[in-house]
Order: sequence, then structure tokens, then C-alpha cells
Amino acid sequence: MNVPLSRLQVGEFERVLSGMDVSYDRCAAFAALTRINTLYMVMRAGSGHLGSSFSACDIVSWLLLEELREPFEEDGDLYFSSKGHDAPGLYAALLGLGRLDEELVHRLRRIDGLPGHPDVHTPHMPFNTGSLGMGISKAKGVILADRLLGRRRRVYVMTGDGELQEGQNWEALAGAAHHHMGELTVVVDHNKIQSDTWVSDVSDLGDLIAKFESFGWGALRCDGHSPQALEAAFRKRAEIYPRTPVVVIADTVKGAGCATFAATSMREDEWLYQFHSGAPSDEDYAAAHAELVASAEEILSRHGLAPLNLVEEAPREPRPTGGERLVDAYGAALTERAAQDDRIVALDADLVLDTGLIPFSRAHPDRFFECGIAEQDMVSVAGGMASRGLLPFVHSFSCFLHARPNEQIYNNATEGRRVVYVGSLAGLIPAAPGHSHQAVRDVAALTAIPDLVVLEPANAAEAAAAVDFCVSAPHSVYLRLVSAPVPAEVAALGAGPLVAGRGRVVREGGPTVLVGAGPVVLAELLRAAELLAAEGAGPTVVDLPWLNRVDRAWLAELAGRADRLVVVENHYTRGGQADTVARALLDLRLDNPPRFQGIGLTEVPRCGTPAEVLTAHGLSAEALADTLRAETAASRLDISLRES
Amino acid sequence: MNVPLSRLQVGEFERVLSGMDVSYDRCAAFAALTRINTLYMVMRAGSGHLGSSFSACDIVSWLLLEELREPFEEDGDLYFSSKGHDAPGLYAALLGLGRLDEELVHRLRRIDGLPGHPDVHTPHMPFNTGSLGMGISKAKGVILADRLLGRRRRVYVMTGDGELQEGQNWEALAGAAHHHMGELTVVVDHNKIQSDTWVSDVSDLGDLIAKFESFGWGALRCDGHSPQALEAAFRKRAEIYPRTPVVVIADTVKGAGCATFAATSMREDEWLYQFHSGAPSDEDYAAAHAELVASAEEILSRHGLAPLNLVEEAPREPRPTGGERLVDAYGAALTERAAQDDRIVALDADLVLDTGLIPFSRAHPDRFFECGIAEQDMVSVAGGMASRGLLPFVHSFSCFLHARPNEQIYNNATEGRRVVYVGSLAGLIPAAPGHSHQAVRDVAALTAIPDLVVLEPANAAEAAAAVDFCVSAPHSVYLRLVSAPVPAEVAALGAGPLVAGRGRVVREGGPTVLVGAGPVVLAELLRAAELLAAEGAGPTVVDLPWLNRVDRAWLAELAGRADRLVVVENHYTRGGQADTVARALLDLRLDNPPRFQGIGLTEVPRCGTPAEVLTAHGLSAEALADTLRAETAASRLDISLRES
Repeated sequence: MNVPLSRLQVGEFERVLSGMDVSYDRCAAFAALTRINTLYMVMRAGSGHLGSSFSACDIVSWLLLEELREPFEEDGDLYFSSKGHDAPGLYAALLGLGRLDEELVHRLRRIDGLPGHPDVHTPHMPFNTGSLGMGISKAKGVILADRLLGRRRRVYVMTGDGELQEGQNWEALAGAAHHHMGELTVVVDHNKIQSDTWVSDVSDLGDLIAKFESFGWGALRCDGHSPQALEAAFRKRAEIYPRTPVVVIADTVKGAGCATFAATSMREDEWLYQFHSGAPSDEDYAAAHAELVASAEEILSRHGLAPLNLVEEAPREPRPTGGERLVDAYGAALTERAAQDDRIVALDADLVLDTGLIPFSRAHPDRFFECGIAEQDMVSVAGGMASRGLLPFVHSFSCFLHARPNEQIYNNATEGRRVVYVGSLAGLIPAAPGHSHQAVRDVAALTAIPDLVVLEPANAAEAAAAVDFCVSAPHSVYLRLVSAPVPAEVAALGAGPLVAGRGRVVREGGPTVLVGAGPVVLAELLRAAELLAAEGAGPTVVDLPWLNRVDRAWLAELAGRADRLVVVENHYTRGGQADTVARALLDLRLDNPPRFQGIGLTEVPRCGTPAEVLTAHGLSAEALADTLRAETAASRLDISLRES
Repeated sequence: MNVPLSRLQVGEFERVLSGMDVSYDRCAAFAALTRINTLYMVMRAGSGHLGSSFSACDIVSWLLLEELREPFEEDGDLYFSSKGHDAPGLYAALLGLGRLDEELVHRLRRIDGLPGHPDVHTPHMPFNTGSLGMGISKAKGVILADRLLGRRRRVYVMTGDGELQEGQNWEALAGAAHHHMGELTVVVDHNKIQSDTWVSDVSDLGDLIAKFESFGWGALRCDGHSPQALEAAFRKRAEIYPRTPVVVIADTVKGAGCATFAATSMREDEWLYQFHSGAPSDEDYAAAHAELVASAEEILSRHGLAPLNLVEEAPREPRPTGGERLVDAYGAALTERAAQDDRIVALDADLVLDTGLIPFSRAHPDRFFECGIAEQDMVSVAGGMASRGLLPFVHSFSCFLHARPNEQIYNNATEGRRVVYVGSLAGLIPAAPGHSHQAVRDVAALTAIPDLVVLEPANAAEAAAAVDFCVSAPHSVYLRLVSAPVPAEVAALGAGPLVAGRGRVVREGGPTVLVGAGPVVLAELLRAAELLAAEGAGPTVVDLPWLNRVDRAWLAELAGRADRLVVVENHYTRGGQADTVARALLDLRLDNPPRFQGIGLTEVPRCGTPAEVLTAHGLSAEALADTLRAETAASRLDISLRES
């Protein structure tokens, strides 16, 4: 099955909006149309947050159509989403209102398109979000600035409910009350499911009304799918709390709008919601699409409007077929090691699926700790466990794990605790979620922590060996796991012995030596080497999985066979492996050192497909081969000039 | 006036404890004796947290004497302070109970002594604290580990009240309730004053009981200076909440125990509490000491015990006389620039005294924002302000500013916001507070952030120039300010033009070129150069205030005159200026590059006096001269071996 996709043009939104004068039904119809296009966008992209977009859709529609004053004017009311997961839905609404270039409907998660999470380079996106918990603080900054600048407008921030586990939210509340921010309204999209499963199972939010009130906020609660209820809540908000920040807790259903995606359709015994971030199957697409169209047309017909005029688009491109996944290999190895070593415990921050921990949590339920979206707490809990002799493995996406609890990781290190930090979704690829999720400065942010070794395995075999290393190492380890499937040529490399600071040659070649780590870089290096080999200058390729350590003797041997040493990184070129190797190379004080070059990111990473983004940043095999050729030419010119 | 100091020997504690059988009075007497020795220790050290030690003293005494079961046994009840500011008081109590080597009473904040904040290398200190907000999480880790290991004990954590502004506390609460942690009791030393001033003025805590209860905790409140009230509260805690974590909010007075230090003695119009962290004057010492002795002896006499037998110690060593302070010069320059540029706003995280912001807050009160101990919130608020065209200067101690809001700083950068981050108390010196407050990996943790330049001025003139640079730069800046007084020889250097990536020669000399930044490093380099000059090999010294940028052309010129290039850092040697210079040096591809060496920290910094700690880490002038001599000798040997 390979279904064609359907979507609505802007004209259809205009027809519906202008053809209805009852604001409630108009809002409901707009939301229904928005969901149709959201679904199209996510299907076209191959991934995207459907569940969260759908749960927030009626709220966003009401805000944009009715509640906000001049939301598209420079000084009008401001709305943004702090969780950012609902970006596809927000884009679809803005597209429907003609506020984004209509061609962008085809370009969710593509380069120069609509990023997976909100980014200020897209019109009407005031902030970069998706890093959770920052929205309330940013809104406060806008309000304080507006007051200073003598302007007045209202600011509305959407948060998730799982997002409220992040401590920054609670830091932010007191100041808003202190400054009597009547301009500020937070809407909690209370859909009860965080990325993996029920919020109440992970870390129950308890009585949210009491919590916000105890921080000096006004608090209201309403049905987040009812325009009438939303209107009443926002009216009350203005009447009762003119000088107080207010939270509106909007009760919603994840995936609301069609039974196919609605969390209410989950079976009693199902614990994992299926439509958090991936694209649905063709079957689910077809079923949901039909439901959404039917529900939209039901409203239209009640108002005497003609059925929807859907535009058929080509079926989506086939998704790349799998390959081995590092997190799976890692998770299996950890589960196995834990069977022999009862010091091992695993802590997770609401990403059990993406960190490969499901087998561990089933095999060792008493040693698995779900900590919720609370990375600082998780890392310090791990420190407490380590103080009692346990060996904690701490998990989150790399982008969050290296940064949010950065001080807590250092604090554990100053106590000499042995903890293994495992960051998945490391590096530039996949690039579809956007830069909030692309961990490309994690090595730098952790490199100076004493006795913390940064290790990035290239394939399943190396990932399994890395677990052994982590268990037996005398120090702490930050294990950096790429989540994109491992390309076949890198999987085929297997693993050599893992000795700290030492790499291994994975492609024999000439005196140009290319060094890198992890599946993304090694695949591009191997391909670049083949491109160059066709021209007679096939370089040597080295897998050096140690990102902040290099063994001097090993490097001396490698340098002895190199006239050029090029380190390529899935990371900013500053503060990572290239700096480590460069420094060590200088320490060797060789008489004839190889020429050194470091290649990596120099700017904030782009969002798009792997190929688009690797090319854009000069890290694809072709781009690397070009860089290496250009350097060779420059070097020849340099030599001929010196000789002349 | 130069008063002799007095203290009590352990025998006096033993005499008092064994001579009284009424637990309440015994506790009060023990606390009074503890305060006498706390005062001695802080006077001897020249700094230390008196106010917080005194407010917590009665609680700590009751816990150690009456409430805890076998607190000094491996599996006994555990007590620790999360705020860590009350370390001198806790040390004095442990000394009084004979649990620490008595000689340590003279060694607060000295090397191999008792660190300014708790450290696990001191007996009976289970955790490193002083980085705020981590304690509840660590306690949870201990409890989860104990349960897994089949052990049971109770854990008591002391927090400050200002400390509760940190988001991590609120992250931590839900999990404790979720796991029914009846083993966990948090005692809030509710003395109402955070480091600078009243908590309620900074960021009111509101109804603490309601807050904790809304997170699923039991909550009790009592007089934190009354043994009877404490006993009743802990009894209730056990009876009412056997399976629930509980907070005991202990109402206390900062500096309690003598009128001299008690916050209740502050005048109505006084907003700044004087005894947070410095040592008192000789006059205040004498007055407070007399009060403390009198109040102790009043209890003793009621129980028929002889007066105290005080040991007289030598007067404290004279404190180093001032020199210019970077934060003062910085604060004055910012205040002046803000008068001309109304985009400038200043945000502070409860350190207005230590960040030099008092003049700014007085001159521009509408543009000064006190954010409380909530660094993540503060940085995102600044991002929101920058989005409206303001130019925020964000302040805290470097140790907190680079790490706690690390992800928020990056998020601002990905939006292209221009923000100036100003971290004071940067680097190794002063070393008295200990490693939680020594920011020695801030450069590494921030270096990879695109368009964030790290700048460390050496003296008042450079600090003022740095403010100009920050205002006019097209990018964000992290301004790294050492808080120790600027040595005269560095003050005398004045400032050259500040051009990004370019340094200036501050001591002409031979082909050994020493490069560094900031007052601490430059002073030691200049002194080391003099030591070596006496032996005929006077090196050149260069001030390079740019820590993550170096201008290639400038470096090429410098390298042209160097046969050795040595970068010395007030920072770990990994991830900082040495890496940046090394990488640039390789990029230059010189035919005869100078030999490169980077010298900096390789392990967690020690606590002690500046001289002790610089020496211990090989960063004193003498140690640097020795290293340079040894390298020279090795190099000669190397050359002669090659030639032979």
C-alpha cells in the first residue's frame, strides 16, 4: 500500500472562515481543517509530533481566531508554544491563515522549510523552543521589556503537562507573581501523556491548581477542546485576575480529533502512546484522514457550506530502510551486563523508547528508575546512588543531558562518583527535529570535567564493547550515541579492542589520514575516501571513538605515517575531538609533523534530511572530498611557491 | 585593635554534655559552645558564613544530639546540608563531638583543612554541596539505593530558604512523593535572608506549607531555635507521615545567638545583612564573643557547672590590603554606559554585592532586575528581553552562570540574541570557598557556542574597556571576572586597545613567550619572568584576554619571535585558551613553529589561601618558573641527544 496524500489549499480555509459567523463552530471547523493539513505535513516529512499538535489544536485555533489582539502585528498580543512539540499544528494554522508561504506545507522538517521545533527564522515564531521549560521565563522577559519600553500587550504561552516536570517552570513562577504580570497567561495543554506514557505514571503532577496558586498565580481549568469553555476561561482570566499571572489548565486528549490517534482509543493494557513523534502507517493515515474530513464536513454542512476541496499529492517517498541501531545494541548489552553485576542501575528522563531501555526495564524492573523530564534531579539522584556503591547509567537525549544538568554532572565528578552518562540522539543527524535536539556541543561542554571520558561508538559491536568499558573503567564515562541507523559499511567494521585514547585504521590508504568517530562521520569518511581513491589519492581512515582523550604513543605512530591528519567531527569544530588531537600533536613535538586540519560545524545546525544537512554543513562525503582536494591544491601551490 | 581570639577545646564540650541531663538545655548549651568555636574558626580563616551557621546551629545541635540514630555509623541516619553555607557551624559541632581532628579547628578554608563548603574528603560529609538545590535529589538517590540494597535509614537534609528559588528543588519533590519516601525529612532553615537581603524582597516564597503540600509532601512548621519545638516537630513528622516525605520549616533568625550578628538587630532602613560570608571586624568579634560566652555560662550556671575554660589563640593574621577590584571597575563602567544607552539592562541572581551592581541598581533602578537564585529563569528572561531590542547584562558567579543555565545560554545563541553574560568569582582564586565556587571549566563549557566570545580582563582599565567592547560587539560575550584584588603590577599595566583575538606584550623579553589572561595568571607570569630573568633567561609575557578566539595574523607575528610558546590558564588545561591557541598555531602551518606548552589545572581545585592553592596546582610564580626551567633542561637534553 502506498496511499496518495491529500491536503487543503489556503483558499479552503478562507472559504470556511468567511462562510461561517458563529465563532464556536468557526473555530471548530478551522481546527478540523488544520488537523487535516497537519497530518499531511507529518506524513510528507516522515516524522513529526502529531499527538501534541492535535491535543493543542483547538486551543491554538481559539487563540489565533478569537482571543489574541492583532497577533501578527509587531506590538500585538504574543502567542508561542514552550513545548514546541506542537509545531506542525501551529504551522498548519498559520498556513491556513495565509501567514506562511503556502509552499512550506510540503517542507516540514526539510532544509529551508519548517523546522521540527519552532525557530525564530520562521515568520511568527518569536522564540526557539523544544528545549523544555524555557517559555514562561521568555514571556516574562518580553513583558518586562515591554513595560520598560512603554508598550503593553498580552503574552500567551502554551506548555505541555509533562514539561511542568522541568524545574525551570517553577523557578519562573515566583517572579511573574512578584511583578504582578497580569499580561501573562500560561495555557497547559493537559493531555496527560508525556513523550512515552502517562504523566501520572512517570511523575504525577498532583493538584496543578493548588501548585500554581501556591506560587501566587491565578489558576483556572477548562475543556481544551471546547471553544465555548475556552472562551469562558479566558473571559474569567481577564475579569478575575487583571494584575495576576494566570494558568489555564486545558484538559485535552493526546491525538484528539480522530479516533485513530486519540489516546482515548488506547486499550486498557497499553502503556505506550504510538503517535508522539513518528509518522503513522499508511493505513492509519488513511483512516485518520477520512475521519478528519468527515468531522470537518459535518460542521460545514450544518452551515450550508460545500464539502471540502482536497488536493491530492503524490504518496510520500519511501523511508530509508533500517540498519542496526546503536541504542538497541547498547540497551541489549546493558541488560546483559546488569544480569551479572547488580551494582548497575538505569535512570531515564522520559525517553525510555529512544534510549533503548525497554529491555532493561523489563529484565530489571527494580533497578530501572523513570525520573521524568527532570534531568538535574536525575543526575543528582544518580550521584546519591553512586555514593552508596551503585553504578548508575543515566539516560536522556544528548542535547539535554550535557547541558541542563551540566553543573550536577560536575558536582558528581568533584565527589569522585563513578556514573555513566548515556546521551542518545547525539550529533547532527537526524536533523529533522532541529537544533534544540541536535547535540553538537556536548563534547565541549563536558570535556574539562576531570576523569570524565567521552566515548562515541560507531556500530553495534562497538556499542556493546563500550558498555563493557563503562562498567570496568575506573572513571566516569559520557557515552555518546548517534540515533540514526548505522550505515552498512560502518556496521561491517565490527569492533576492535577499546583502549582509551587509541583508534584503529578502518581503511588502509595513503599518507592523508582521516580521523573520526561514530557512524555518521565514519560513513562519510569512508565514502569520501572512495571518491578520492578513484582519483588516485585514497586516504587512510581511522576510527577514534575517544573524543576527549588521545593516547600519545598511538598518535605518534599514526602521525609517523601521515603527511596530513584531518579530524572530522559530528560536532562544532571548537572544543571537541579536533582540539584534543591538535593539542596532543603539538605535545609530541615531532620534527616533521603532519599538516593538521579540523573540520566540523561552525554555525547552528540546520534542520532537514540527513543528506540536505550534511551537504549544507560541508560534512557529506562529496563536500569533504571537495575540501580535501582544495586543500591539496593549495598545499601544492604553497610548496611550488616556496620552491620557486 | 588586634584582639586575641578564644576558643573551646573538645574537653569543654565533653564536660558540658556529660554534666547536663536535661536534653533541651543540653542542646542549647552545646549550640552556644558551637557558636563560640564557629566564630573563632571564621575569624581565623578571615571569611566564612557566620549568619547561616548561626541560624542553623540549634537545628544541627538537636539533630546530632537527639534526633538522629547512630549518625556516625556507616548505616546510621544521614544528615547533610544542601545549602552548605552553614559548613563552619557543622564543623564546629563535629569538632565538639570529637568527630574531626581537633587541629582542624584552626584550618577552616586552609589547604588540607576544612573547605569553605562541604566536601566528601572531610569525615562525615556525605556530599559536596554549596552548589545550591542538589541536596533533596541526592537524598532521594541514597534512599532508592538503600531500598535496593535492603537497608533502611532516615535521611535529613538542611536547605536554605533562598535556596528554594532554585528549580531543581521543585523537580525533586514530585519523585519523593511518588516513591513514598517516609525516610526523607527536609529541614528549611527559614532565616528569611538570602545572601544579600530579604528573601521576600528578592522573590517571595509565598506560602511554603501550601507549596510543599501541593507537591504531595507533608509540611510542618516550628521555631528553629527551640529544642522543645524541634523535638515536637520531629515527633509529629514520624507519627503523622510514616510513608510521606516531610518538610519541617524551621523559623530562624540569621545570625541568631548573639545580638551582634542577629538579623533582628538590623535597623528598619537597613537592607543589606552584614554577616553573610565575610569575617566580622575585631570590634564585632569581641562583642559577639562576650555575648556568646555569657549566654553559654548562664545555662551552665543553672546546672551548677563551672564557667567556660577558654583557650586564647593569637590574633588573626592581618588581611591582605585591597587593590583594585574588577567587579567595582566593571560596575562603574556599566553604570556609566547605561546612562548613554537605554537598551542596557542588568539582571542579577542574588549577588548584587559580589557582581558590582549596587551603583547600577541605584542609578538605573528601573533597568535593574533582581531575579533571585534562579539562573535558568534569569538567562531565559534575558533572552526574552533581547528579543525586544534590549541589551541584557546577566550576572552571577561564574561557577553557576556557565553551568546551571548552560542550555538556556545556547538557546539564546541559536536565536541570535545578543546577551552579555558576566561571571564574577571566576577562576581558582579566592580558593577559600572551595571547588563549588571555583569556576575553572567555564571557558570549556561555553567555548563551542557560536558567536559567543569569552573575554577576561586583567585590571580595572581592561574591565572598563571590556564593557565598551560588550556594548558595541556584534555578538554575545561571556565576561569572566576574577574577584580577587588585582595585584599592583597587573593594575599598572593599564589597557591596550581591545581587538578580538589580539593580545599585547606586557613584558618585553626573550624568545620564551608566556601567554595568559586575567590578574591572577598575569601576576604569576610577571613574577615568574622576573625569577627567570635573574638567571639570564627573561621571557616575554603577553596578555591575551580572549579565551576562545585568537587572531591568526597576530599569532603568526607572535610565533615569529618565539621559540617557545607557553599558555598558562586559571582554568582546567583542557577546553580553554591553551586549546584555542594550540589549534590556531597548527592552522598557521609554520615552517619552524615554536614549541608549545599549555599549563593549567588537571584536577579538582583545592581549597585554601591563594598562595597555598596556586602552589599546590603548580601555578604560583615559583612553580611556573620551575616547570619552565625543567622544560628548558629537557629540551636541551633532547637537542643534544638528537645531535649526538
